Amino acid sequence: MPITFPPPPQDKSELETGAAFTPRFDADGLVTAVVTDAKDGELLMVAHMNAEALALTIETGIAHYWSRSRRALWKKGETSGNLQTVEELRTDCDQDAVWLKVSVAGHDATCHTGRRSCFYRTVSVAPEGARLTITGAAPQFDPAEIYGKS
Amino acid sequence: MPITFPPPPQDKSELETGAAFTPRFDADGLVTAVVTDAKDGELLMVAHMNAEALALTIETGIAHYWSRSRRALWKKGETSGNLQTVEELRTDCDQDAVWLKVSVAGHDATCHTGRRSCFYRTVSVAPEGARLTITGAAPQFDPAEIYGKS
Repeated sequence: MPITFPPPPQDKSELETGAAFTPRFDADGLVTAVVTDAKDGELLMVAHMNAEALALTIETGIAHYWSRSRRALWKKGETSGNLQTVEELRTDCDQDAVWLKVSVAGHDATCHTGRRSCFYRTVSVAPEGARLTITGAAPQFDPAEIYGKS
Repeated sequence: MPITFPPPPQDKSELETGAAFTPRFDADGLVTAVVTDAKDGELLMVAHMNAEALALTIETGIAHYWSRSRRALWKKGETSGNLQTVEELRTDCDQDAVWLKVSVAGHDATCHTGRRSCFYRTVSVAPEGARLTITGAAPQFDPAEIYGKS
């Protein structure tokens, strides 16, 4: 039987300290999902989940998201092989975000650019404004090869 | 002169690998901000920033957010003393999220419940559905004392 989520309680203290998981989906029906690597804590990506994606993630132990750009359920890694096994799932004080600690299969890469993490650029201040510098390791797979060129 | 952000480029490869910081604010004018502790990588909170909060964060080195519930600029820690000094700021591949690695002053606590992290509960599956268990350390300050009882 699929997991369903009860509506959030009116009582703030129940929301913040209670034992019921009552995610507060936003106007688009989504919660924010923060994904870190279970082995070293590196921030890998930020994504969104609707109730179906969240239930599937809990039921299967494999991370599912809602793709806002494609407007579709998204089993992360289905094409690339870089599936995410959820080692631990947490929620925050007001239950509008979840934190997934995952083990990444395949290339051990999460970003569609082939990099391990989507957060591969640092922001710094230059005379002309805020600038980005690429940091971290090179891509671990070739997106053109994995996803096709189209 | 306050930092301003140019509009995102049409070209995806420029967005993903260029040197210009062109945050993609959503329909509400916000980007997602993930906040981790610079010293050990612990996920502390997830919040949102509008252009003003992001510019102030970059200019001052102290984290500022946009409070969606209060609909106001929010200098995190202004009341509690738990200010966040930004040690590193990153953005993700499509520039709709930022990652702040911070040092927390005051009680070394980020959550308004007094805990170090907002993510103090794990999700598990029980016969009656998804349940929460409080994990991690006890609160590091008393919210009633810091914020008042009202």
